[in-house]
Amino acid sequence: MKGTVGELGEFGLIRELTSRLTTTPAVRLGPGDDAAVVAAPDRRVVASTDVLLEGRHFRRDWSTAYDVGRKAAAQNLADIAAMGAVPTAVLLALVVPAELPATWPVELMDGIRDECQVAGAAVVGGDVVRGETITVSITALGDLRNHEPVMRSGAQPGDVVAVTGWLGWSAAGLAVLSRGFRSPRAFVEAHRRPEPPYHAGPAAASLGATSMTDVSDGLIADLGHIAEASKVRIDLHTAAIDVPTQMSDIGQAVGVDPLQWVLTGGEDHAIVATFPPDVKLPARWKVIGEVVNPSALPQVTVDGAPWERAGGWDHFGDEDLPEAEDD
Amino acid sequence: MKGTVGELGEFGLIRELTSRLTTTPAVRLGPGDDAAVVAAPDRRVVASTDVLLEGRHFRRDWSTAYDVGRKAAAQNLADIAAMGAVPTAVLLALVVPAELPATWPVELMDGIRDECQVAGAAVVGGDVVRGETITVSITALGDLRNHEPVMRSGAQPGDVVAVTGWLGWSAAGLAVLSRGFRSPRAFVEAHRRPEPPYHAGPAAASLGATSMTDVSDGLIADLGHIAEASKVRIDLHTAAIDVPTQMSDIGQAVGVDPLQWVLTGGEDHAIVATFPPDVKLPARWKVIGEVVNPSALPQVTVDGAPWERAGGWDHFGDEDLPEAEDD
Repeated sequence: MKGTVGELGEFGLIRELTSRLTTTPAVRLGPGDDAAVVAAPDRRVVASTDVLLEGRHFRRDWSTAYDVGRKAAAQNLADIAAMGAVPTAVLLALVVPAELPATWPVELMDGIRDECQVAGAAVVGGDVVRGETITVSITALGDLRNHEPVMRSGAQPGDVVAVTGWLGWSAAGLAVLSRGFRSPRAFVEAHRRPEPPYHAGPAAASLGATSMTDVSDGLIADLGHIAEASKVRIDLHTAAIDVPTQMSDIGQAVGVDPLQWVLTGGEDHAIVATFPPDVKLPARWKVIGEVVNPSALPQVTVDGAPWERAGGWDHFGDEDLPEAEDD
Repeated sequence: MKGTVGELGEFGLIRELTSRLTTTPAVRLGPGDDAAVVAAPDRRVVASTDVLLEGRHFRRDWSTAYDVGRKAAAQNLADIAAMGAVPTAVLLALVVPAELPATWPVELMDGIRDECQVAGAAVVGGDVVRGETITVSITALGDLRNHEPVMRSGAQPGDVVAVTGWLGWSAAGLAVLSRGFRSPRAFVEAHRRPEPPYHAGPAAASLGATSMTDVSDGLIADLGHIAEASKVRIDLHTAAIDVPTQMSDIGQAVGVDPLQWVLTGGEDHAIVATFPPDVKLPARWKVIGEVVNPSALPQVTVDGAPWERAGGWDHFGDEDLPEAEDD
């Protein structure tokens, strides 16, 4: 495809985007009408929205449009999974500059579509308008399959804290990229394209998870939301947390304790949940801490003590992505 | 409330926004967790997304934050109604500059909340991030109440075309505003805050509507979507279309045929539908045309002939809102 978004025009672009989509049995009516219709078999629908901005959440010189699409979809689909639901559909609200090559939104859509397929969902609708800054807003829908939603507020003292998926990989990849490097590839790839363990959300609900969330802002920050909502303290046990050798190597190279990436790095969208202490967890879950009674300590502690280093981020803070460097 | 969005911070702003929301019985889980849970009584959910950008779809000197919220919500809720569904919930994805007064997003949320209440829905979730341009993306959800969705593709030759709601009021109001005037108020208000007839969508479904849409881009443009999807031609009868006297007065004052506003003005979100010819329509519906077999003529004609004047708009064209004028 040649030309810019402006040359293709709104309707041309929408035609191009929708022509690339796939469908699923849950899609009763896809794009092209005033609204889509999606199956909600258990008479409830789970819904979540997130926004990604160029310069703030992604950079075009670090991530392809395809990867941004995968990442934007993953972020939302992981929120659905973290309620214990199976993702069914997403809607895309896209702002693109007129001078952007038309291939960019098209490849973005390919990425969103493919990530949806990994999660079992489909793109059912959206809106595209012209604007200065590329803005990707995705709303994901899901089905609870007759489970109750697993909220953040159900953790009980005595529960174990368990996690599945990747921790700190995206943050390590960002550290690599922001120093002008392109390798180790595995971490750079993890930053560009997270792999949330979607299946683990509904599985955790079946296993009796008492609370659950996905790790989008960092393990300590996101467990802080569970601790606050559940009025408990959560203590993490570093002896139970694996730091991959390669991550330690990167940490040494760039002068960062890799445990900081594991405990405070976001965007990998691991699934973390609390379970009654007698739970039998499948092999890919790892128990990394316990729920205790609230105390004068912070809501999340590490080996019984406050974690003193930086953690999480405030989207209104000054922690934008670093400025571009020359290759 | 004092200070800017940046001073309030992401979590402070989200707390402020969510504290103002109301709920309905359909909301099973509101904002604050990874995702919301909304009732979908008939095992399907209707979903639609739209984006509004500052400078492109609204101007802060012409519309209050509250009005932008009303309008953004109305636009999405009307899409749900136009499928024949009852709106249940909306999610908000908001981009705001750090230097924006914090009152702005708060009043925006008040507007969204109040428009949702008019339609019987509630705000159930969202995301807020910092960015250069105010961007309001709303996803609306709805319930079909066991009706089949009324699509654009079901119009049959012989059907009547009927409309309910306002036509051309927003366009006339925009014409007034863009010439530096603030009155007549009714039209300026209509531009700032449309009043879609939400109830008419599900009512039309019950009355056996064969196709339906809301008028967001202009009557001819939106009926064009129905004509194209249904493979028919639609002929409008100007003798059946009322042009309010005050609108004619404005037209004379600014040198525009007011019929152009009625036929091509968008954003009032009237509901237009086709019905079998023997339908008995309630008083607030007005028959304005008929569905005929496709021909060499355009898909929508006016009194049997092409409408030669400008119509609709392409979001990638150069038809931004006019530049600000001094008061």
